[in-house]
Amino acid sequence: MIIRTAVAGDAAAIAAVILPTIRDGTTYALDSEMSEADALAYWLSPDKHTFVLEDDGAIRGTYFLRANQAGRGRHVCNCGYMTSAAATGRGFARRMCEHSLDFARAQGFRAMQFNFVVSTNTRAVRLWQSLGFAIVGRLPGAFAHPTEGDVDALVMYQRL
Amino acid sequence: MIIRTAVAGDAAAIAAVILPTIRDGTTYALDSEMSEADALAYWLSPDKHTFVLEDDGAIRGTYFLRANQAGRGRHVCNCGYMTSAAATGRGFARRMCEHSLDFARAQGFRAMQFNFVVSTNTRAVRLWQSLGFAIVGRLPGAFAHPTEGDVDALVMYQRL
Repeated sequence: MIIRTAVAGDAAAIAAVILPTIRDGTTYALDSEMSEADALAYWLSPDKHTFVLEDDGAIRGTYFLRANQAGRGRHVCNCGYMTSAAATGRGFARRMCEHSLDFARAQGFRAMQFNFVVSTNTRAVRLWQSLGFAIVGRLPGAFAHPTEGDVDALVMYQRL
Repeated sequence: MIIRTAVAGDAAAIAAVILPTIRDGTTYALDSEMSEADALAYWLSPDKHTFVLEDDGAIRGTYFLRANQAGRGRHVCNCGYMTSAAATGRGFARRMCEHSLDFARAQGFRAMQFNFVVSTNTRAVRLWQSLGFAIVGRLPGAFAHPTEGDVDALVMYQRL
């Protein structure tokens, strides 16, 4: 398993990872009907560092890291992680998050913030907590869950 | 005093309101050195509704409203408000916020969220609280204040 910077030739493999999660619509506040081109434009936008996780020669996960704010808020970074459905339960999200924390420190970021963790995504919440993140905010009813109605979203944060 | 939708011809007057606040750098996490063109591109970007407040024939304040997230988070809006330094203390920020709450309800938004209220901006915090916002999150040291060092930023929220 390796984690490396994404390159242009990874686009199709990245799309195969992120589109099912976007279409599912239960964990990210993204337009679930967005085109593949728009999804890739979002995930690979110039303000982001984007990485892929390869295992057995195939891309199984991807994440991005960017500054969460500009100006005097730019010392805090933000990340998004997605793993292919076929590869869940193998610790890939954890590996990507650990990689992102190391990369963020190396880049000089002083904190990492997740702006919008859907509260019903309890596996993710527990994973981020086990990696040092605290719940520092709760947004009441901020996510219109497709089956559970309006549920809270969490803001999670850790200093680096 | 009227509040109306911004039009292209307002650009110079809007710049005169927002650039001093951006240059000051103590209340918004924006690049304080950004060009006037970049500042206007940000404030008037296509994802935003932008308004101006006119008093005695001059633009004294401006605000934007946008969806804070996409997809299943798009029922929550976000706003930014700026008043010209010469017009502070006259209730214009309050009037703009009241206008934005009415506009948001009319547009069908179900909540309003401020992502990054600098905690040392106590006048703003108190104003938003008086208008119904609660502090729902605290981001430790997320703003590198130019004179006070790293200070917390607040997430404020109200259902509509």
